[in-house]
Amino acid sequence: MAGNTFGTAFRVTTWGESHGPALGAVIDGCPPRLRLSEQIIQDALDKRKPGKGGPVETSRKEPDRVHILSGTFEGMTTGTPLSLLIWNKDARSKSYDHLKEIFRPGHGDYTYLKRYGIRDHRGGGRSSGRETAARVAAGAVAQLVLDLFHIEVLAYTVSLAGVDAVQRDLKEIENNRLFCPDREAAKNMEVAALRARSIGDSVGGIVEVLATRVPAGLGEPVFDKLDAEIAKALMSVGAIKGVEIGSGMKAAYMTGSQNNDPIAADRFVSNNAGGILAGISNGEPIIAKAAVKPIPSISMEQDTIDTKGQPCKIKVGGRHDASAIPRIVPVLKAMLQLVLADHLLRRFQIEITDRHAFIRDRLHGKLI
Amino acid sequence: MAGNTFGTAFRVTTWGESHGPALGAVIDGCPPRLRLSEQIIQDALDKRKPGKGGPVETSRKEPDRVHILSGTFEGMTTGTPLSLLIWNKDARSKSYDHLKEIFRPGHGDYTYLKRYGIRDHRGGGRSSGRETAARVAAGAVAQLVLDLFHIEVLAYTVSLAGVDAVQRDLKEIENNRLFCPDREAAKNMEVAALRARSIGDSVGGIVEVLATRVPAGLGEPVFDKLDAEIAKALMSVGAIKGVEIGSGMKAAYMTGSQNNDPIAADRFVSNNAGGILAGISNGEPIIAKAAVKPIPSISMEQDTIDTKGQPCKIKVGGRHDASAIPRIVPVLKAMLQLVLADHLLRRFQIEITDRHAFIRDRLHGKLI
Amino acid sequence: MAGNTFGTAFRVTTWGESHGPALGAVIDGCPPRLRLSEQIIQDALDKRKPGKGGPVETSRKEPDRVHILSGTFEGMTTGTPLSLLIWNKDARSKSYDHLKEIFRPGHGDYTYLKRYGIRDHRGGGRSSGRETAARVAAGAVAQLVLDLFHIEVLAYTVSLAGVDAVQRDLKEIENNRLFCPDREAAKNMEVAALRARSIGDSVGGIVEVLATRVPAGLGEPVFDKLDAEIAKALMSVGAIKGVEIGSGMKAAYMTGSQNNDPIAADRFVSNNAGGILAGISNGEPIIAKAAVKPIPSISMEQDTIDTKGQPCKIKVGGRHDASAIPRIVPVLKAMLQLVLADHLLRRFQIEITDRHAFIRDRLHGKLI
Amino acid sequence: MAGNTFGTAFRVTTWGESHGPALGAVIDGCPPRLRLSEQIIQDALDKRKPGKGGPVETSRKEPDRVHILSGTFEGMTTGTPLSLLIWNKDARSKSYDHLKEIFRPGHGDYTYLKRYGIRDHRGGGRSSGRETAARVAAGAVAQLVLDLFHIEVLAYTVSLAGVDAVQRDLKEIENNRLFCPDREAAKNMEVAALRARSIGDSVGGIVEVLATRVPAGLGEPVFDKLDAEIAKALMSVGAIKGVEIGSGMKAAYMTGSQNNDPIAADRFVSNNAGGILAGISNGEPIIAKAAVKPIPSISMEQDTIDTKGQPCKIKVGGRHDASAIPRIVPVLKAMLQLVLADHLLRRFQIEITDRHAFIRDRLHGKLI
Repeated sequence: MAGNTFGTAFRVTTWGESHGPALGAVIDGCPPRLRLSEQIIQDALDKRKPGKGGPVETSRKEPDRVHILSGTFEGMTTGTPLSLLIWNKDARSKSYDHLKEIFRPGHGDYTYLKRYGIRDHRGGGRSSGRETAARVAAGAVAQLVLDLFHIEVLAYTVSLAGVDAVQRDLKEIENNRLFCPDREAAKNMEVAALRARSIGDSVGGIVEVLATRVPAGLGEPVFDKLDAEIAKALMSVGAIKGVEIGSGMKAAYMTGSQNNDPIAADRFVSNNAGGILAGISNGEPIIAKAAVKPIPSISMEQDTIDTKGQPCKIKVGGRHDASAIPRIVPVLKAMLQLVLADHLLRRFQIEITDRHAFIRDRLHGKLI
Repeated sequence: MAGNTFGTAFRVTTWGESHGPALGAVIDGCPPRLRLSEQIIQDALDKRKPGKGGPVETSRKEPDRVHILSGTFEGMTTGTPLSLLIWNKDARSKSYDHLKEIFRPGHGDYTYLKRYGIRDHRGGGRSSGRETAARVAAGAVAQLVLDLFHIEVLAYTVSLAGVDAVQRDLKEIENNRLFCPDREAAKNMEVAALRARSIGDSVGGIVEVLATRVPAGLGEPVFDKLDAEIAKALMSVGAIKGVEIGSGMKAAYMTGSQNNDPIAADRFVSNNAGGILAGISNGEPIIAKAAVKPIPSISMEQDTIDTKGQPCKIKVGGRHDASAIPRIVPVLKAMLQLVLADHLLRRFQIEITDRHAFIRDRLHGKLI
Repeated sequence: MAGNTFGTAFRVTTWGESHGPALGAVIDGCPPRLRLSEQIIQDALDKRKPGKGGPVETSRKEPDRVHILSGTFEGMTTGTPLSLLIWNKDARSKSYDHLKEIFRPGHGDYTYLKRYGIRDHRGGGRSSGRETAARVAAGAVAQLVLDLFHIEVLAYTVSLAGVDAVQRDLKEIENNRLFCPDREAAKNMEVAALRARSIGDSVGGIVEVLATRVPAGLGEPVFDKLDAEIAKALMSVGAIKGVEIGSGMKAAYMTGSQNNDPIAADRFVSNNAGGILAGISNGEPIIAKAAVKPIPSISMEQDTIDTKGQPCKIKVGGRHDASAIPRIVPVLKAMLQLVLADHLLRRFQIEITDRHAFIRDRLHGKLI
Repeated sequence: MAGNTFGTAFRVTTWGESHGPALGAVIDGCPPRLRLSEQIIQDALDKRKPGKGGPVETSRKEPDRVHILSGTFEGMTTGTPLSLLIWNKDARSKSYDHLKEIFRPGHGDYTYLKRYGIRDHRGGGRSSGRETAARVAAGAVAQLVLDLFHIEVLAYTVSLAGVDAVQRDLKEIENNRLFCPDREAAKNMEVAALRARSIGDSVGGIVEVLATRVPAGLGEPVFDKLDAEIAKALMSVGAIKGVEIGSGMKAAYMTGSQNNDPIAADRFVSNNAGGILAGISNGEPIIAKAAVKPIPSISMEQDTIDTKGQPCKIKVGGRHDASAIPRIVPVLKAMLQLVLADHLLRRFQIEITDRHAFIRDRLHGKLI
């Protein structure tokens, strides 16, 4: 009934609140004999670290130092559960006391109380974006499985504050604080985001995720289709309001002759399918987009009610970002990594010997 | 590993191929003492029946007569599994023989072979839209759970062949063959769809699903958020390429002050959230949209390859619709019914006595 | 929440009541490209058929004709769900009318009413042993997976009516109606069982299940240990009250030096472990025992209450066996087949090409 | 596929190795608003603490101090995942170096290597009994759910080293180091166990678990029957080789008239069923027995092989108990607590308000 576990073969359970002592993830189903160190996970976490996003972001310091408490032996995974732990260091819960009795619009304050009859109001408790640190950590482990297939997963900002990226220069992603593949657009995005922030407002955007070298044949019809699982994975991230695969919502305005991808001898000629046909990967790159809503914590005055139902006004102060975008990019990447690792393990054989790693197609026995 | 089951508390497993002897669903977890007859399910199936969509659709006759083989006693559910069966009557598999060795663009022919190493090429086999008849049947049973809460679920066409509905006149939905809430738009949609069909092409569209009177407090953070589950449910339907909750993709272009829904004493003032905050229902109507791609079976010539990898041309004949829309509308409705029944049973207590049905809030014990 | 599904990778959902129109199973996760016909399943069902047990059994005729409604194409599994259906033909529900308002001791009448608030009193409804026909059918499909590993599963009676088998002459099993590996004991068992039956009583017994050529390395610590899964599987059969693995309850009275199995170069010297160490198969034969309680339907007068709580007397007539043993033997065999197929698919790679079937060790890549 | 999670509604995932930095459990599905402190869990862990078993046990010091890292707020559960952590303090892994290349008979050394291709040989790694500390911690949380129903769970030793308890004086359990309900037998058990230990051997025994005031109606036929789940739960503990419910293996030697429990107006007259009929609790006490094998670590010389397959001799030294019994008793109790909490939450409504806790029967709406 409870919903804190993701995946079937590669199962990740996250735990932890924004202002509790720690947060973490337990990964059950990771193949044995993968080389894993805390540093590998740390590198992924550091991308999510505040500050990287520059003035778009808050100044909260989160070292997010990860500890591996189980599941490895002499630098290798053993096939037993991996327990990952991150201590919460900079948790100033005092600053949330004034929000104890009031529901912030756009946040889960009201619904958590309806759901559980109790809520940890400090920083959103479990509903805080801080929970996603555990997802990013788990995604880094999932990437070890993807590495065996030479699969690369990227996530990048294609729209922010009304500014759309025109270029898809993927080398540019690491060069700007918004993970944007269009250097010029990135500058304009930042300007527009800061303008909104200067009047106490926030902005939304769109993140694209891309996975290359995904083998054909991943996905479990009819309900666990690969696109259905990706949709769930991306939508399970707090701020997401829409998910598109391939041609996405635009498919609604296309004809069959426009949207169908012709097939050539060795590949599909176009990729409106986003790499997925009938819920199964077709060998083309997996492409999906997620709409990120503007973060609801704004310092403009809003109408709301308190926990007794009385109307009141609220201005949300505290340490908040102008947009969730720079920090959500690694999270959406992690979610795609988790989905793919899960379906690779549902579909393929992983063989890791002392000297080699082999992947075999379960049906044809061929090395891939 | 296998993916033919949907739901946690209200679990539906579907089975069956397009041209096999039958198809069906097993529902495990339906509460006991609900009044259920074959006619209740039949009424839902009849809405999906071909022909209703008029000239937009094919002429294939599918009586889709449902049989309940277990789980009821004297007209009441018993809490044991419900087995629903629909015989396939009009299965002209001969007409698919020419497609045995060729991959239709936009279909699952290629990916099913990659996934399973074997495929039933007749009518798409398991990947056929015919499988969704079992979903509609299960949705009708799910509605019995929703009825206890007086929840109404609607699905309707808001865009087809480039024509958008402007009105949301929900009374109009049952009055036209496209389930469109805008009578004028419906006419234009039909014209545009037929025009595409006349040249052997097909069209896409958008379906909106709406659930009213959903109690606040449904959804299981963090991974089984109600919106994540809806996204998966809708995306698991074959032709869907995008899913939006509330303001959807548009949220990306809004500011926090625009997208946040202010809270008044007894309700939310707007519903950009689509009825869901932090993955939990907030008591407002649940609203989602799904983009339906143009059906890939078109009679225009397309480039493809055969099973030996040789390039060739294909014109897909057979009995196909100009758009999946009229038939997919009841399917998307069913998927929302399934998600809601599942989460209602994960959250609320169902009490059915000889004379009354009571629903209690698990946390507060109040009758609702 | 509902409990009608067994297995993780090879998932079986059964449905159906004793006196409903039909019963069946849906199997999700069966590998593609296995040769499967209705006759293969029928052969297994025929072993469970009443009559084979001779005078120990009732005269109810159950043709138990199985139909495969999905999941195969041209005699091969396709990887999509297999739907198996058996019509109920000889359901004389009239004869159960007098039991509508009374609870039979030792049966589920009382507890089903407590659990569901409604019960199908005809022949026990869902709690009837008839449900196990679906398990036997599914077990026959599971054996196709076991066949790839040359695993043989046997089940046989080692005690009945107080008479213990002394011999383990496995060739004898098919030669007598009690599936007993000791010809002399079988005769004495039958005499003792008939003596009990002649005074309206019934008898218990013990069934042993044995699987040979099970590869080492099956089982998922710590909760899904292979022995834990076998214990659940066997105990889930209605009449079972005890389960033993290897030395079983006797292990409680042994010392470490007696119970430990020494290890030689190519095998374990003894098998007190029953083929399982730390929840993982060790390559030795899997051996388990299940205690079958005497069937509770006896024609001797018993104290009970009616549905209003009033004390009364009951003599259960109708068509009942003296012992569940002859019919339960194939069911226990099926349960072990299901557990092993499930764990083989959780652990090993199955490759089936047009000409060969290969099994590879997921870790070492060796053909086995 | 992985097996480190137990339960459906009350889900416990354990992690950690014997000689890793820590071990723990994540509990997902615990109801909100239960009063929980670290001390409540600590009290349960202290019962499992070495030393209590006296000379029967080893001298390893395990403070087993539990930390709650998430899921509570101001002393109450919040409905979000509970993360429990116990640091490993006294892990002398050096002393296991000589076992790196050799398989201990009766242990999981051989099978873990077969299963995972790698093993943490220090103290058995994941297969160590130390993992059960996490189960005991989780069991203490499960008891909070049981407390709402006033359910009491007991576990006690009824046989050790060939000495059977004759009395069932449950008040005596806490008075001796073996948790034995028969004071005289306890003395004889200890003498017999020490005699075996003095010659380097170990002894087996039987533990009985008992749950009183369990409401009728728990259990999910047909595969998740309450007795099937208990069998799996108990058998999932390392040393268990047999599980009996109620009359257990003896049922095989009884007649229907002996084994059936007559029903009186307000109760069952006997309890051969062990409180479970057709997989559903009947309101009588739940009684089960588990056979504990003698611990395999003995200092007598045994035949085995090394990791290269060469025969050799082994004497297992190190810190080991004469019997697992005193430490396994709280573990088996915990497993029954976990099963019951899980099925209570699958069946009943839990309402916890500011002042009261209400439990309602889901079917009849009555307070119980």
